[in-house]
Amino acid sequence: MHSSWIHPVLYVLAVIMILFAFINFEHVKKFLIGRPMRTKELHAKHNKLFWLIALPILSADLYSSVAYGPEAGVTELVSLGPSVKWIILPITAATVILLGMLIVSYIMGVLAYPNGGGGYTIARENFKKPWMSLIAASALLIDYVLTVAVSVSAGIQAIVSAYPIVGHYQTSLSVFCVIFILIVNLRGLSESATIFAWPNFLFIICMIILIIAGFNDEFQHGFIQSMTPPLGTVPTNLTILIILKAFSSACSALTGIETISNAVPIFRDPPVKGAIKAYITMGLLTGVTLIGFAYHLYVKGIPVDPNNTMLSQLATVYFGHGLFYQIITWSTFIILIIAANSTFTGFPQLTALVAADGFLPRSLMIRGDRLGYSNGMIVLAALSALLILAFHAQTNALIPLFAIGVFAAFTVAQIGLTRRWLKVKGSLWQLKALINAIGAVITALVCVVFAITKFKDGAWVVLIALPLIVFAAMAVRKHYDRIADELRIDLKTMHPQKHRMLSVVLISGIHRVVLNSISFAQSMHEEVIALYIGFDDESIEKMKMKWEEWDSPCPLITIKNEYRSLLQPLSSFINIVEVAEGGKPDHIHLILAQFIPNKWWQYALHNQTSLLIRAWFFKNKDVIVTTVPYHLHN
Amino acid sequence: MHSSWIHPVLYVLAVIMILFAFINFEHVKKFLIGRPMRTKELHAKHNKLFWLIALPILSADLYSSVAYGPEAGVTELVSLGPSVKWIILPITAATVILLGMLIVSYIMGVLAYPNGGGGYTIARENFKKPWMSLIAASALLIDYVLTVAVSVSAGIQAIVSAYPIVGHYQTSLSVFCVIFILIVNLRGLSESATIFAWPNFLFIICMIILIIAGFNDEFQHGFIQSMTPPLGTVPTNLTILIILKAFSSACSALTGIETISNAVPIFRDPPVKGAIKAYITMGLLTGVTLIGFAYHLYVKGIPVDPNNTMLSQLATVYFGHGLFYQIITWSTFIILIIAANSTFTGFPQLTALVAADGFLPRSLMIRGDRLGYSNGMIVLAALSALLILAFHAQTNALIPLFAIGVFAAFTVAQIGLTRRWLKVKGSLWQLKALINAIGAVITALVCVVFAITKFKDGAWVVLIALPLIVFAAMAVRKHYDRIADELRIDLKTMHPQKHRMLSVVLISGIHRVVLNSISFAQSMHEEVIALYIGFDDESIEKMKMKWEEWDSPCPLITIKNEYRSLLQPLSSFINIVEVAEGGKPDHIHLILAQFIPNKWWQYALHNQTSLLIRAWFFKNKDVIVTTVPYHLHN
Repeated sequence: MHSSWIHPVLYVLAVIMILFAFINFEHVKKFLIGRPMRTKELHAKHNKLFWLIALPILSADLYSSVAYGPEAGVTELVSLGPSVKWIILPITAATVILLGMLIVSYIMGVLAYPNGGGGYTIARENFKKPWMSLIAASALLIDYVLTVAVSVSAGIQAIVSAYPIVGHYQTSLSVFCVIFILIVNLRGLSESATIFAWPNFLFIICMIILIIAGFNDEFQHGFIQSMTPPLGTVPTNLTILIILKAFSSACSALTGIETISNAVPIFRDPPVKGAIKAYITMGLLTGVTLIGFAYHLYVKGIPVDPNNTMLSQLATVYFGHGLFYQIITWSTFIILIIAANSTFTGFPQLTALVAADGFLPRSLMIRGDRLGYSNGMIVLAALSALLILAFHAQTNALIPLFAIGVFAAFTVAQIGLTRRWLKVKGSLWQLKALINAIGAVITALVCVVFAITKFKDGAWVVLIALPLIVFAAMAVRKHYDRIADELRIDLKTMHPQKHRMLSVVLISGIHRVVLNSISFAQSMHEEVIALYIGFDDESIEKMKMKWEEWDSPCPLITIKNEYRSLLQPLSSFINIVEVAEGGKPDHIHLILAQFIPNKWWQYALHNQTSLLIRAWFFKNKDVIVTTVPYHLHN
Repeated sequence: MHSSWIHPVLYVLAVIMILFAFINFEHVKKFLIGRPMRTKELHAKHNKLFWLIALPILSADLYSSVAYGPEAGVTELVSLGPSVKWIILPITAATVILLGMLIVSYIMGVLAYPNGGGGYTIARENFKKPWMSLIAASALLIDYVLTVAVSVSAGIQAIVSAYPIVGHYQTSLSVFCVIFILIVNLRGLSESATIFAWPNFLFIICMIILIIAGFNDEFQHGFIQSMTPPLGTVPTNLTILIILKAFSSACSALTGIETISNAVPIFRDPPVKGAIKAYITMGLLTGVTLIGFAYHLYVKGIPVDPNNTMLSQLATVYFGHGLFYQIITWSTFIILIIAANSTFTGFPQLTALVAADGFLPRSLMIRGDRLGYSNGMIVLAALSALLILAFHAQTNALIPLFAIGVFAAFTVAQIGLTRRWLKVKGSLWQLKALINAIGAVITALVCVVFAITKFKDGAWVVLIALPLIVFAAMAVRKHYDRIADELRIDLKTMHPQKHRMLSVVLISGIHRVVLNSISFAQSMHEEVIALYIGFDDESIEKMKMKWEEWDSPCPLITIKNEYRSLLQPLSSFINIVEVAEGGKPDHIHLILAQFIPNKWWQYALHNQTSLLIRAWFFKNKDVIVTTVPYHLHN
């Protein structure tokens, strides 16, 4: 009962923190992240790719979801008993039709934005008000986080299916994967690295072999086998709602379609043609795989088992637990991890784009040592790790939150494209506008279906989070705009001016550090006051005598405080000075000494009062604070 | 399996952190801790107490341990089977004899130090080298922490025995108790509050009634009953080692004897007489209770049950689960909590004492708002909560770590007292010296027995921790001594001197904040340089042009950094200046601007680069850093 009183992840965090405390942070960072890179190395990184190579790289996100999409759909039907297993066929067919429509719509997007343009760019260019583009951005951001959480969880679930013994560590392993992907991305391994093409190819080939093996089996043993559930039985408790729920879960297989349209420029010339070829091939591959996979699942009557994925079960039926089963397992795992990995390029790029428009904190625009937007990556990793922890890495628990965001973003992008064709015209503009308008209507419908059918299961989280993010983004922009107004100065009329300053040196006795601080103050100011705050009369008297003995280098003011606090009397003193000077003086300059110990453990031996005082004054008063460091030699 | 993925304690911590983030910290603090108190209120707090009132207050720690001491002894014998249950009788007898000797020794301590003197004071006054007193101090500090952990765990175990349903939350409840006691103590409810006398009286009365009920039962049903185990059987696997182990566990009932000797001044005049009366009464009460309790346990053949304390089982036998059982349960709980609570006075007083001698961080000497040594209290609470977490609030797992420290401290104190009598002499000094010498020998023996028999079970932790603490204390003292030497100045010859200073203002553009900072710099210095670090040629050219447009208020230096870092070029620049000035100049003064947002969430929108730069320079360079705050209005 008490054996696992602290989550393993916490142990790892503790170890990391201890490492950071003891080891030079720069070295750890260099070891994990690599040497810093120059800004100009950025453009040297991208190589143009032949479309057949770009295809597997850009399709990881979409194609990998065949590993969990159909299963997510079937899971919704479990409660109706085995007799409705056949419904996987019409649902998968509907999913594939939707896939086809989306592919056509996205080809329109590629034609419109040959330099790459995600939902956010399209919306921003085609709507005057920022609301629509922010809805697209928030929806995409939510979905990127969910893609990482779902892909990693599904990847680990593939491993758990093959090795049930690691089932206990599902959550921890998933979080480790996220941390691992984060580190890899902080190092700057980009999405377009051709090295990722091969495992993706491998997975695609595995799936094709699986499907061929299935048909081979069916040619030998019949297309209706003893375990095949009856076709067409309609149980009384089968409602439209349940079918729609199953359909919307199955549509989680469609996430990731936008990847190619964001990455048009990486295709070898002519990029648009390459991208369209890739889109068509990817659509055909995914469609064939989905239908073949669903059909074999139906024929073999594979049940839902939370501890063994349907893909793993089907592979076992055809190939047993031999080498090929292992290849399928590991390539599933790898493609899902690569899908999560590709999100680590998309999310930070989008946040940087939105931050550049002033809707997100500017720190998301800073390129890290390895030229990636490190802050965005860290945010993505943290959020998805939290989701994994909260949902115990259960893919089926995460699916209801998924897809709604993608389809919301799809809808905004399609409406934007329609508006664009109506405005820009160009060849065949009526056809293009029609395609995108139909796309918009369908994705909007799907989105509404999702929101309604999945509301209770978790979609409400997204429906709350989405407007909150939009609202927060507007507030951020408003803040930045106001700050910009506040900070703007007229270069012609406003110039630096000298002020009269009063300098207050807070002292705790007479010693080398105080000598230092007063020397510093007197090097700068005419008016220097030393301030001593004592907790009893005795210490104050002693201080006064010592000060005289020291020839009183500057006026000394003593304050007695019976509450043993420095902050309160210091603050009152500054209030008094402000009044005594005849209203607020130009500048009050507080000078504090701070011990800088030689070794880290010595920090515990010196009160860091000056830090507290500094923080308090910054928050509450308009006082300039100078810290004079004193480096302890021992 | 995954249902409790995060420990409940973490939730509470999260809630507290969120509260602190959103609510004004001062208000929370005032609500939890109370208004600040003046230093002079300190002495008004202590009222002199009549010894009969002081007795229950000061005996909580010792007397409460009857609730777990005998059980801890018997637990060691469980593996030998039920036939050796009778050994509880000789072991308890030995414990009570040891108790008597310690009481007599401690009365000698009271006579020697009528102003109160714990093991540390006694050792410090009677040994020249600090080693012995530090051993006493470390041993006591370790034991204070263990007292809190054991008392709270035992208190919760009493509740769990009565209400098994809360058994799952044993650890969490124990940690909550520690936090609760901490808050109460931060408020400043002192150990000597007479309010604590009554629940302790109640527990003493409960125990006496329990013992009388036992004898009543035995008069009616015989002193040997059907369930009474046979007396004197010696199983072949009974070794001296096991008996010594049981004895040393049972001795955990003797912790807390030192409390009265530390608190002599709170007795009403004459204090020494009152303290001695209290010692004798407390010794008699504890001895009678231990023997009576052990005898009844033997007669009724009560077995060890980790989910039901022996006290709870015995009370059930006599009184069923009615009202009186409830009273026993809750008074046991309360006295154990009060025992833990009294430690919150002892530990911080001892750490303050040791810190005043320079062996512990000085922050332990600071009295908090409510006049208690808050930092010591927080350290005690944190350490004991960690112990409770690590040992899952299992009293029997904590016992092996216990008592060794107490007896080590006892030994040092007894040797110190012996030395004192030999030196000071006085009336009956030979007798007193003899008593303390015998006490020293016996406690030393007990200590060695503990260390050997309990080594494997956890005593090794203490045997490692104790010398480590002593070593750390010596290192702390050495550090403070060296610092004092380093800081000392000659008031006659060393006076503040004016230096030549170079002031560097780091700017990010031309706006109101920069105007502010340059105004400040020019108000103080003749030599001001503005430094701009750009990441590309374009921004640097733009900056130079704007600067000229602004009539160049001071020289501008621009640096291009392709690694998008401010720290590294800034640091190189300062290195260059240091060399260019012909060796190290007197002072380099770095001026940084810092945005102070209006609302807490706005901090996320502004890079806190100046904090990072400041921290880095303090650690690595001898540069004075001034932060010019800019309070954002929006």
